[in-house]
Amino acid sequence: MSGNSIGQNFVVTTFGESHGVALGCIIDGCPPGVALSEADLQHDLDRRRPGTSRYTTARREPDAVRILSGVFEGKTTGTSIGLLIENTDQRSKDYSNIKDIFRPGHADYTYQQKYGLRDYRGGGRASARETAMRVAAGAVAKKYLKQIHGIEINGFMSQLGPITAETIDVEQIEQNPFFFPDASKLEALDEYMRDLKKSGDSIGAKLTVVATGVPVGLGEPVFDRLDAEIAHALMGINAVKGVEIGDGFAVVEQKGSEHRDLMSPKGFESNHAGGILGGISSGQPIVAHLALKPTSSISVPGQSMTAQGEIAEVVTKGRHDPCVGIRAVPIAEAMIAIVLMDHLLRHRAQNMDVHSDTPVIGMR
Amino acid sequence: MSGNSIGQNFVVTTFGESHGVALGCIIDGCPPGVALSEADLQHDLDRRRPGTSRYTTARREPDAVRILSGVFEGKTTGTSIGLLIENTDQRSKDYSNIKDIFRPGHADYTYQQKYGLRDYRGGGRASARETAMRVAAGAVAKKYLKQIHGIEINGFMSQLGPITAETIDVEQIEQNPFFFPDASKLEALDEYMRDLKKSGDSIGAKLTVVATGVPVGLGEPVFDRLDAEIAHALMGINAVKGVEIGDGFAVVEQKGSEHRDLMSPKGFESNHAGGILGGISSGQPIVAHLALKPTSSISVPGQSMTAQGEIAEVVTKGRHDPCVGIRAVPIAEAMIAIVLMDHLLRHRAQNMDVHSDTPVIGMR
Amino acid sequence: MSGNSIGQNFVVTTFGESHGVALGCIIDGCPPGVALSEADLQHDLDRRRPGTSRYTTARREPDAVRILSGVFEGKTTGTSIGLLIENTDQRSKDYSNIKDIFRPGHADYTYQQKYGLRDYRGGGRASARETAMRVAAGAVAKKYLKQIHGIEINGFMSQLGPITAETIDVEQIEQNPFFFPDASKLEALDEYMRDLKKSGDSIGAKLTVVATGVPVGLGEPVFDRLDAEIAHALMGINAVKGVEIGDGFAVVEQKGSEHRDLMSPKGFESNHAGGILGGISSGQPIVAHLALKPTSSISVPGQSMTAQGEIAEVVTKGRHDPCVGIRAVPIAEAMIAIVLMDHLLRHRAQNMDVHSDTPVIGMR
Amino acid sequence: MSGNSIGQNFVVTTFGESHGVALGCIIDGCPPGVALSEADLQHDLDRRRPGTSRYTTARREPDAVRILSGVFEGKTTGTSIGLLIENTDQRSKDYSNIKDIFRPGHADYTYQQKYGLRDYRGGGRASARETAMRVAAGAVAKKYLKQIHGIEINGFMSQLGPITAETIDVEQIEQNPFFFPDASKLEALDEYMRDLKKSGDSIGAKLTVVATGVPVGLGEPVFDRLDAEIAHALMGINAVKGVEIGDGFAVVEQKGSEHRDLMSPKGFESNHAGGILGGISSGQPIVAHLALKPTSSISVPGQSMTAQGEIAEVVTKGRHDPCVGIRAVPIAEAMIAIVLMDHLLRHRAQNMDVHSDTPVIGMR
Repeated sequence: MSGNSIGQNFVVTTFGESHGVALGCIIDGCPPGVALSEADLQHDLDRRRPGTSRYTTARREPDAVRILSGVFEGKTTGTSIGLLIENTDQRSKDYSNIKDIFRPGHADYTYQQKYGLRDYRGGGRASARETAMRVAAGAVAKKYLKQIHGIEINGFMSQLGPITAETIDVEQIEQNPFFFPDASKLEALDEYMRDLKKSGDSIGAKLTVVATGVPVGLGEPVFDRLDAEIAHALMGINAVKGVEIGDGFAVVEQKGSEHRDLMSPKGFESNHAGGILGGISSGQPIVAHLALKPTSSISVPGQSMTAQGEIAEVVTKGRHDPCVGIRAVPIAEAMIAIVLMDHLLRHRAQNMDVHSDTPVIGMR
Repeated sequence: MSGNSIGQNFVVTTFGESHGVALGCIIDGCPPGVALSEADLQHDLDRRRPGTSRYTTARREPDAVRILSGVFEGKTTGTSIGLLIENTDQRSKDYSNIKDIFRPGHADYTYQQKYGLRDYRGGGRASARETAMRVAAGAVAKKYLKQIHGIEINGFMSQLGPITAETIDVEQIEQNPFFFPDASKLEALDEYMRDLKKSGDSIGAKLTVVATGVPVGLGEPVFDRLDAEIAHALMGINAVKGVEIGDGFAVVEQKGSEHRDLMSPKGFESNHAGGILGGISSGQPIVAHLALKPTSSISVPGQSMTAQGEIAEVVTKGRHDPCVGIRAVPIAEAMIAIVLMDHLLRHRAQNMDVHSDTPVIGMR
Repeated sequence: MSGNSIGQNFVVTTFGESHGVALGCIIDGCPPGVALSEADLQHDLDRRRPGTSRYTTARREPDAVRILSGVFEGKTTGTSIGLLIENTDQRSKDYSNIKDIFRPGHADYTYQQKYGLRDYRGGGRASARETAMRVAAGAVAKKYLKQIHGIEINGFMSQLGPITAETIDVEQIEQNPFFFPDASKLEALDEYMRDLKKSGDSIGAKLTVVATGVPVGLGEPVFDRLDAEIAHALMGINAVKGVEIGDGFAVVEQKGSEHRDLMSPKGFESNHAGGILGGISSGQPIVAHLALKPTSSISVPGQSMTAQGEIAEVVTKGRHDPCVGIRAVPIAEAMIAIVLMDHLLRHRAQNMDVHSDTPVIGMR
Repeated sequence: MSGNSIGQNFVVTTFGESHGVALGCIIDGCPPGVALSEADLQHDLDRRRPGTSRYTTARREPDAVRILSGVFEGKTTGTSIGLLIENTDQRSKDYSNIKDIFRPGHADYTYQQKYGLRDYRGGGRASARETAMRVAAGAVAKKYLKQIHGIEINGFMSQLGPITAETIDVEQIEQNPFFFPDASKLEALDEYMRDLKKSGDSIGAKLTVVATGVPVGLGEPVFDRLDAEIAHALMGINAVKGVEIGDGFAVVEQKGSEHRDLMSPKGFESNHAGGILGGISSGQPIVAHLALKPTSSISVPGQSMTAQGEIAEVVTKGRHDPCVGIRAVPIAEAMIAIVLMDHLLRHRAQNMDVHSDTPVIGMR
C-alpha cells in the first residue's frame, strides 16, 4: 500500500499538486466491459469545479479530464485506467508572499517538518485541488454501481454554520449552488454568505451522503468494516474533522430500546444504524454525515511563524472559499462510491458462492 | 490485505469468536530488542475485562494471554509475535434460544446474509470479546511508543448518557469503574446506572482519547492521513457510530478566525485541530472522541425476524452490559496506539534522512 | 502488508520459531460453507513431517494441528481461521554450542545483522520448521480448490543430485520416501543417500509441481502475474535458489518456432509455456520447477566467524537432513495452492460478470 | 494492493497500452530532498528504446518522459511522483489483420478469456511497451540507491541462444548493442543474429544482474524474503520463464560442503548464495539470472485459433525483436532497483534503532 492509494481490489492512486504540471490518477481493478468516456467523468468534475458559484473560489479551472488507458472502443478492458487533468490556471504569484510563512490552520508547518521541504504554492499536495482526481475516479465507480447494481449515491449540505436544513427535498439539491435541500432557507443562506464574504472570514458546514440500493453483505470485519472504511475515506477529505454513521453522536444519549432498529419480514422499521450493522451493510440506506471546518485561508489577519522560527502575521489574499463545504459534496459522494466499489469486489471475491435461505429485507 | 488485519508496517491480524476455542493475534513488524512479557499485556487486558465492575457484564474470563513467538530471552526478535487467549467461560446455553432469531441492532442478520451461515453463540466473530486481542496488541505498541518515544495514550469517558464530565482530572480516571475524570459526578453516575440496570435497558456513551508526546510528521497523505487512519481504527470498534478529531462537529458553527490555531515560535496557542493538520501530526496533543451506541442486548422485548423469515420477539437474558462504553476505553487507547505505531514506522521508512531547519514547536 | 503474510484476498499470516512455544497461522478470506476439520490438514502435515523416512531428520514432532476459530459445526464461517501446532520435541541442547557462531550457509549472520539479536536455537524463525504452518494453510486451499473447482496439485522430485527421473509415474510418488516418480532409480537413490549420510555431507534437489484443472484467466498483470506470484511463493521456501515455469532455462536455446505452443479449437498442441501465457493461466497444466540447495548443516567441518568477529570452526551434529528437498514437496504444493486460491478470488472479484464468446480450450 | 502496483513502502503503479494514448506511472514513497529531473530517467529509457540497435524492433518511439508532480525546484517533495510518456509511433494498421486471431505464444487468448475483450493492437497491456514505465520508475530508485547508499546495479547478457559469455568485462557491456560482456564473441553474435533475422525466427536469452554495495539486512522473512521479491519482480517481466539467485539450478548437483560460503572476519570466501542468506542480503554482491523465451512474433507461420473458435494460420509481419532479451537488460536492472528500494525502506521502518555488535563483513 501507500498513502496515495485507497482500496484493495478497486484501487485508486493519485498524484498532483495545486500548482504542479498536472493531476492524475490510476484506477486499478475496474471490471471490464463497462462503457466509459470522458463525459461520464466530466459531470461530477463540473459540480466540484471552482467558479460555478459566486460564493466559491474564483479560480477558473476547466478541469477537463482525459482517459489515457484502460478503455478500448468505449469499454473498460480490465487493465489499469489512467486519468489526467492538466493544471491551467495556477496564478503562482498569489502565494509567493507566504513562501516562508506557515499559515495557521493549514498543512504548511506539518509538511515542512515531515518532508524537510514543501511546494508552498497554493498548498501543494495538501490543497483541495488534488480532490479533483478523487471525484474523477469516484465517477467511474458511481457509474458501475448505478448501472450494474442500481446503487445511487447522493450528497447534500445539511447545515451551513447556524443554518440547518429542516426538510430534505431531493429535487432542490442540484437547483442551488449550496447543494442545500431546503428551499425555505435559501434566502437566509445567500444573505449569510454575502455577509461572510464581506467580513473576509469563513464558516464550517455539515454534509450528509445517502447511498441507496446497497446490497446486504458489504464490509469486511473486523478491521475493514464498512463503517470504518467510510470513516477513513471521509475523514481523509481536506477539512473534515468528524464523521458519523446513522444517528452518530446522538446515540450517546439514546437508550438501547430507542436506538435499535426493529425488524420484521416486511423490513426494518427505522434506520438509526444508518444502514450498517456489525460493520456490514444491511440493505437499508447508508447514511453518513461529515463535519468540515471553516477554511483558515481568510483575510482576517492571524499570527504565525516563519520557517526560520520568527513571529509573523499572515493575511491571505486572492482566491478563497468562505465555505469549503459547498464544494465538498461531490467529493464525499465520490469517496463513498470508491469504498462501496472496493467492498462490492471484496465481498464477491470471498462470498460469490454463498446462498442464504433467509429472505433479504430492506426498509419497510 | 485482509479484513482481519490492520496496519502496513506494524500489522495486527486477529482471529477468534466469542465462544470459540481461543482468541489470538499475530503482530508483525514490531522493532526488535524491545523488552516484552505477558505482564506488559495483562494490565490493559484486566482494565478491559468483564467482571471488573459491578456494572459491566458478569462473564468471568481471566483473559490470560500467552506469548507464543517473537520474543527470546525477554526481548522482541523482530519476527512475528503470536499471542493467544484461551476462552474458558463461554456458557453457550445462554444463546441457544436465539439460534434462529436475528437480534435487532446486532450483526446476526448481516453476518447470515454475507456468509450464508454464522456462529450464533454470543455474537460469534461480531462479539466485543474479539477486542481482547486488539487490546493485547495495542499494549505492545503502547509499550514501545512510551519507552522509546515518550508517547502516552490516555482515554476516559467524557459523557455517559446525559451526564457529562465538566472537569478532566487525570488522577480520577483509574479510580472509578467508569474511567470517568470528574469525581463530582460519580454519585450521579452510580445512581443512573443502578436505575438503568433495573430497567433492563442500556445507554450510549462518548469517550475521549488523548495522545501526548507524538512527534510532528506522522501521517501519510492523501489517503492514509493520520486523522483518517484514526477514524478507521475507532469506527471499527464495535458499537461506534461517530468519530471526531479535535473540535469535531463543533466546527460546523465555527468561524475560520475562531477555529484556526495561531502559532508562534513559542508554540501553538490553542488546539482546535486536535493535533492534526493536513492529515499530519503537528506535535500538539492528539485529541479524538468517539460515540458508542447503547447495546441492543437488553431485556426490553423487541420485534424481530427468524432465519426463515417469520416474525419473532427477542428478549435477551444473561450477561450483558448496560453501557458498553465503560469497557471500550482500553480498546480505544489500544487502537490509537496501533495506528501511531504503524505511522511512526511508515514515516521513518520514507523520511529517516529528513532534516528540517524549522524549529519544532508544541503547545505553548 | 507484512513480511509474514502472503496473499491479498486469501491471506496467510504465520508465526513461530523452531524452538519456540508454538507455530501458528491465521487464514483470512477463506470462503464460507466449506467443510473443514483437523483431519483435512493432518495428511499433508504428515507427508512433510520429520521422521517419516530414514533419510530425513530424526526430530520427532507429531505436528498435531488444532483449528481455533473460523469453523463452526464443521464448516468455515468466512471469519479468520486460526491454526496452532505446539512444539514438543525441541532439544535445545543441540544448539547451545553454536550460540555465538554463525553457521556458514545459514541465516545466522544475516538475522543477527538485521535485527541485532536472534533466537539461535535451531535456526529460530529461519528454520524450515516454520514451513509446517504453510503446509497446514495450503491444505485448506487445496481442499477448496479440489472440491469446488476440481483443481489438483501434485509435486514430486524430478532430480536428486545426479539422479534424474526419466519417467513420470504418478502412482510411484507416494510409494517411496523420496516422492520420486521413477521406480527404476529407487535403488540407486537409496544407495546414494546411504553413502551421503555416512559422509556427513548433503546434496541438492530439483522438484516439480503440476497443477491441473486450473481455469483460464488467473493472474493479475502486470506485476502480480500468475508466474511472478508462483516464483515469489516458491523462491520464498527455505533453500530454494531457482524457479522455472514450463521449459524454464531451456528456453534460452530455443527458437521461437520451437517454443510457442500452437493452438487449435481442439486445444493446445504442446505446453512449453507451462500453463501460463502473458502472466495468466491458459487452462493447460501449470508446471513449475524449483531448485533446492544442499543444506549447510553437515558434519563436515567448515570455517566461520563468531558474533564477536573471531575465526571459528563449525561442525553441526544432531538431527539433520542430507537432502532437504525430500521434505519440500508438500511445502511446494502448499505454496502453489495458496497462490492459486488467492488468484481465484482476485480474478472473480473483478471479472465475475465477464462472459467470453471464445470457446475455452485445454490440452489436446 | 493491485496487480498494477509493486512494492509496499516504495510503490510503483503503472498504466498504459502499446497503442493507447500514453503510458504513465505513479511512484509513491520516494524519500524527499532527492535531486531529480527528466534527464535522470531518460538515460535508461534510451538504453531500452526500440531502434537503438539494428537487431531490435524498428518501432521508433522517442520515449520522452515528463515528470508531472512530486518534484519541486528540482527536488523530490515526498509526495507522489507522476510520470508520463506519450505514445507517438503506434502504426495500428500492423495489427488489424490479427484482430480476431490469437497469436500462439502470446497473451491474446488468455486476456480474451480473462476480461471478455482485449485491446488487440500490438499486444495491448501485455506488450513489452508497458515496461518503459518500469524503467523510468527504476531509474528513480537507481538514483537514490546509488547517490545515498552507493548501491550499483548492472545487468548484462550472459547467454544468447548457444553463445555464452566466457569472460565478464564490465567495460564491454555498454559498448555493443547486446549488453554482452565478452568482446571475443561479438562477431559470432552478430553473424548469428543476421542469420536469425533472415530466417524470420527468434531465440531466447539469459541475462544476469549484479547489485553491489547492498547493505546487509534487507529482506522481510518469511514470505517477502529478498530472493522471493526479486524472483517476483523478474518473473513478472514479459517473456521470463526462469529466475535464479546465485548458483541457481547448479545447486541441484552440489554438495553442501561445496555450496556453502565459508566466512571469516575478513569476509565471505565465495558467493554461491548470490548475496542472500535466509532471505536476507548478506552484504555480498547480489547475483540474479533470468531466462527469456524467444518471442512468438515471428514470420514463420504457425497454427492458431480465431476468437470464434476456428482454425487459422498466423504470420506476424511488421516490427519485431528476434531476441527480446537484448532490450530486457535495463528492465531487469530497473526491477531489481525497485525491489531494493522498497526493502531499504521496509528494513529501516522496523530496524532503524538496531545496533549490532557483530562486525559487518563483505566479500574477501
